Amino acid sequence: MIIQLQTGLPEEKKQRIIEKVNTLKYKTTEVTTQKGDYIIGIGKNEFDIREIGQMQGISDIHIVSDDYKLVSRKWKVNPTSIDLGDGVFISEGDMAIMAGPCSIESEEQINKIIEHLKANDVRIMRGGVYKPRSSPYSFRGLGIEGLKKWYTAAREAGIKIITEVMQVSQIEEMYDYIDVYQVGARNTQNFNLLDELGKVDKPVLIKRGISGTIDELLYSAEYVFSAGNENLMLCERGIRTYERASRNTMDINAIPIIKEKTHLPVIADPSHGIGIRDYVEPVALACVMAGADGVIYETHEKPNEAFSDGQQTLNFRDSEKLINKIRKVFELRESL
Amino acid sequence: MIIQLQTGLPEEKKQRIIEKVNTLKYKTTEVTTQKGDYIIGIGKNEFDIREIGQMQGISDIHIVSDDYKLVSRKWKVNPTSIDLGDGVFISEGDMAIMAGPCSIESEEQINKIIEHLKANDVRIMRGGVYKPRSSPYSFRGLGIEGLKKWYTAAREAGIKIITEVMQVSQIEEMYDYIDVYQVGARNTQNFNLLDELGKVDKPVLIKRGISGTIDELLYSAEYVFSAGNENLMLCERGIRTYERASRNTMDINAIPIIKEKTHLPVIADPSHGIGIRDYVEPVALACVMAGADGVIYETHEKPNEAFSDGQQTLNFRDSEKLINKIRKVFELRESL
Amino acid sequence: MIIQLQTGLPEEKKQRIIEKVNTLKYKTTEVTTQKGDYIIGIGKNEFDIREIGQMQGISDIHIVSDDYKLVSRKWKVNPTSIDLGDGVFISEGDMAIMAGPCSIESEEQINKIIEHLKANDVRIMRGGVYKPRSSPYSFRGLGIEGLKKWYTAAREAGIKIITEVMQVSQIEEMYDYIDVYQVGARNTQNFNLLDELGKVDKPVLIKRGISGTIDELLYSAEYVFSAGNENLMLCERGIRTYERASRNTMDINAIPIIKEKTHLPVIADPSHGIGIRDYVEPVALACVMAGADGVIYETHEKPNEAFSDGQQTLNFRDSEKLINKIRKVFELRESL
Amino acid sequence: MIIQLQTGLPEEKKQRIIEKVNTLKYKTTEVTTQKGDYIIGIGKNEFDIREIGQMQGISDIHIVSDDYKLVSRKWKVNPTSIDLGDGVFISEGDMAIMAGPCSIESEEQINKIIEHLKANDVRIMRGGVYKPRSSPYSFRGLGIEGLKKWYTAAREAGIKIITEVMQVSQIEEMYDYIDVYQVGARNTQNFNLLDELGKVDKPVLIKRGISGTIDELLYSAEYVFSAGNENLMLCERGIRTYERASRNTMDINAIPIIKEKTHLPVIADPSHGIGIRDYVEPVALACVMAGADGVIYETHEKPNEAFSDGQQTLNFRDSEKLINKIRKVFELRESL
Repeated sequence: MIIQLQTGLPEEKKQRIIEKVNTLKYKTTEVTTQKGDYIIGIGKNEFDIREIGQMQGISDIHIVSDDYKLVSRKWKVNPTSIDLGDGVFISEGDMAIMAGPCSIESEEQINKIIEHLKANDVRIMRGGVYKPRSSPYSFRGLGIEGLKKWYTAAREAGIKIITEVMQVSQIEEMYDYIDVYQVGARNTQNFNLLDELGKVDKPVLIKRGISGTIDELLYSAEYVFSAGNENLMLCERGIRTYERASRNTMDINAIPIIKEKTHLPVIADPSHGIGIRDYVEPVALACVMAGADGVIYETHEKPNEAFSDGQQTLNFRDSEKLINKIRKVFELRESL
Repeated sequence: MIIQLQTGLPEEKKQRIIEKVNTLKYKTTEVTTQKGDYIIGIGKNEFDIREIGQMQGISDIHIVSDDYKLVSRKWKVNPTSIDLGDGVFISEGDMAIMAGPCSIESEEQINKIIEHLKANDVRIMRGGVYKPRSSPYSFRGLGIEGLKKWYTAAREAGIKIITEVMQVSQIEEMYDYIDVYQVGARNTQNFNLLDELGKVDKPVLIKRGISGTIDELLYSAEYVFSAGNENLMLCERGIRTYERASRNTMDINAIPIIKEKTHLPVIADPSHGIGIRDYVEPVALACVMAGADGVIYETHEKPNEAFSDGQQTLNFRDSEKLINKIRKVFELRESL
Repeated sequence: MIIQLQTGLPEEKKQRIIEKVNTLKYKTTEVTTQKGDYIIGIGKNEFDIREIGQMQGISDIHIVSDDYKLVSRKWKVNPTSIDLGDGVFISEGDMAIMAGPCSIESEEQINKIIEHLKANDVRIMRGGVYKPRSSPYSFRGLGIEGLKKWYTAAREAGIKIITEVMQVSQIEEMYDYIDVYQVGARNTQNFNLLDELGKVDKPVLIKRGISGTIDELLYSAEYVFSAGNENLMLCERGIRTYERASRNTMDINAIPIIKEKTHLPVIADPSHGIGIRDYVEPVALACVMAGADGVIYETHEKPNEAFSDGQQTLNFRDSEKLINKIRKVFELRESL
Repeated sequence: MIIQLQTGLPEEKKQRIIEKVNTLKYKTTEVTTQKGDYIIGIGKNEFDIREIGQMQGISDIHIVSDDYKLVSRKWKVNPTSIDLGDGVFISEGDMAIMAGPCSIESEEQINKIIEHLKANDVRIMRGGVYKPRSSPYSFRGLGIEGLKKWYTAAREAGIKIITEVMQVSQIEEMYDYIDVYQVGARNTQNFNLLDELGKVDKPVLIKRGISGTIDELLYSAEYVFSAGNENLMLCERGIRTYERASRNTMDINAIPIIKEKTHLPVIADPSHGIGIRDYVEPVALACVMAGADGVIYETHEKPNEAFSDGQQTLNFRDSEKLINKIRKVFELRESL
């Protein structure tokens, strides 16, 4: 169960509620986020909801049958809208486009991409400065210095930044220079990282694990939310299967399924979802049609010279085409 | 290599060509289909294509680097169009809709569905009379008698029939009553069945195996084609993965990938692809946007009373909505 | 439920039992096998077993909670022993070794292998005369003529034959020349083939599907059993996963799990299970230790010249070593 | 390539070698471990190995065609032996047994298990104090205080400790109280954690990722090694597949494959590999027969009361049986 508390509730009254919940054999967790105070009760006993509902200090109470609670659409029917400032939102009924290179490489590269994004009215730029790489000998990103340069250029252009955070110590280090923390597919179940991201007040995008289930993704979001951060979105980026004709198998099913299970925005990543440049467009458009609230994809002035992921990166001409088509497909979807 | 022979080529000249190809250390297979005569050469040696191209009796020669040959788009760039008669086509640039129940159950059921299809101008009806079932104790279909009743009603209504053929002996038995043979996901690599379907002159739809690769699907089509039947289409119906939130994982990637590899039409089956009624629509529309040439899905007057697959079957109201949306999405796709 | 009938029960009494079972809302299937007469009841209602148990003509009655019935160990606790004649058995507490080439290639090849098997006291020879191949242009086996030659040589040597049957028409064709029909991984759910194999009186080995579940394998066996043939064994041969370092992933877990679920013998196929010659031995020995009742593997005088599967085929020296080790490991297992 | 440097080589000579390697278009990484100094060269050009081999300061040079280098058996043929002190080793030709609960729960529980291990001459105890849990509301371990109590009891009994480290900050925190750091399946590709574990001088066991490939596991080990720590072992613990009859699919193939690819010890975890108590024994014995250098499994006085993983945990009676059988099977394996 989720109990929403009245704001400014005295500790004493809160404790009384907790005790009451415990008498029902429910374990309790106190949650305080940017938006409110909650008590989460975990248990299976049947009880009369009025027993608790009538107590002082409670603004609302919800029975949530899912194992994850706070991220469930069963108690929060209205979709979560994430405000990045300056009129940039990520939310249902909108179509957020996030584009940029796999890796941030140089100031020149940053500027070229920002120019491309501005020309197409894209307000969020993706890019990696800490790169998780299978091999220790591969390029591992420009690090914080690269991020600072990117930040300077992006701020000037009115562009928001989403980039991957790989470990706890980077959260604070990156804080001043980013707009959205991205949790990569290899860290979806890095629970310490999730816990700590719950303590900051900037939005978090969580990618589905390389072979993570939909439920695991929702649980990972529950970690961040229950640690205090409601500004969350989820990202489907393809799963690992036996099929070798594509890098991953884009789980198109996941989009409508996740949308129904949670009130959080769902973003699609077709670049990783298929991993082959020529097919990023049809997969991206399919994801929009399936109900995604946004698309994140890789673009670079010269994909074949990119430091990483070149084979799935669009050049600017194809990127521009894609942006236009995404918008048309989204428009049709909303009109159906 | 694929050598297209001139029509009516005397046996002697043909043999001369075969001998020549054999001298290049290529193994040869002679193929005669409804549309032409071919010699397929399998080998790896480099050779000068003119050596063969200049021989008498050859209308064209193609080097095909793929392991499958006749179904490859590398030699036949123009998409295959399948003509079911009475103005019903399955082909690129068109949007074939095939709908109907999982199982044919009764005349009343047949008539209800035909009425629904006619009202929505859907010209192809799906339905099973031989049902592959995991358990021997489950309903296994009405068999040939059910098919005959269906045929009578469908012919009168101008509706074409696609239904699953499970074994060689059924090919002839069903021949007079069907328009398209469907090879189910459990028979994608039933090579004897494929061989025999190559000998008939009615179109064949091959479903991807339950965990078949894209290449295996193309090879299975190569079986039918090389045995004589060019009227082929392929169907993506979801693959088996670890994810349990859906019945299968619809491989949306497969649609653009298969489209590029082969000249055959690609049909999407969202009913099996996700297996959950509420999400058939978004997955269907996503498949259309990804480039499918047609959609096959399950509908029934009362899905909850269906003999099989009720949980993924649409009622007529939702089916009608889906048909309209498919057409709008297809229209947009073609205009992009 | 499974009702074992007394032998020679008059039809009238049988019908009375069936009617009684139907009144409990259980659907019935009559099964007659080489070994007895059964009535299978499928349903979910609770009932008092004595209501039926006391009826005339019943020798025993069992409630089986599994969805498959006749193959379940819940009613038939004693393991099934398969008698191939001449003192050759496949059964729990024994260790059946079946070895031979992927494909039967020539009389010379047959003789070499038979010699090798005899020298090592192996009594069952595997080999394919009908080969399921992904590509229609690959070698597809010597067919019935190859089988006849093999049969002649094997009989003389006292060697039993197991070979794959791919379609219904081959069942009769092969009947006189084989000792065990093998259903390959691509035909595990070829239900027509299974039905027909239920009507013959020779043993059947069913391989697990390429990505078949354990339950599906048991259901497939239920098809054959319920159609009349109790002489059945199952074969674990690896499943399809994302891992590319081996051809398949040998599902070692499946061995103890299947052994507990069914009374049928379980055979392990390490050649296909890993697909790499150098590792066939450790995987084979692991399977014995996990509880397999037999091992089937590929051997050839000159693996690198084999028509198919050479990369996973042992030469005679390694085959001999493996045989000796299998026997020692089995001996230890039985002593633990 | 891997260049082993002479000990105490002056910086100047080292730089000369690096420069030389760079002229061959190989990127270099300097590695200093507990056991030696290396230069790793990454590149593809052909060159004459003597050009470098003859330079001053080089004790040996190896061309390693694998993408991972330092963990490859291609340069270090002798297996790595890990010395935990007090005569406890983990190495090829030995059979390390590590047993204990999923979670450390209490002093009483610790003492019971230690008693059980001592009685059976098992020298290494597993147990979790930081528990990665899908849900934030599950028991997450006793933390460092639990570890300290465990340490005190274990030291007294001469028992070594292996436990999971989940994040960088825990490395130092745990250092004084553990003998082997375990990297869990959700952290196999937590590259920051791996980097930092490369800087400590205690052994590390790396579990294969939940759906990690064998190559990814070897790369993860390369991270730790190249960051300075050679005391490494790998653990096969089952992979995620479509099969639902077991928790994971134990990849028995992985054991001989990894053994051939690397000089590091390979440990099998049958508890997670199958996830069902009754089958832990056959799977464990199969892994020993397949070539594992050790077995790690879960045991608890009262498995059904365990805080976590009870369904796959052995009671002491079954644990004792397993230990005895492991030793007998290992003895046979070594004698074959």
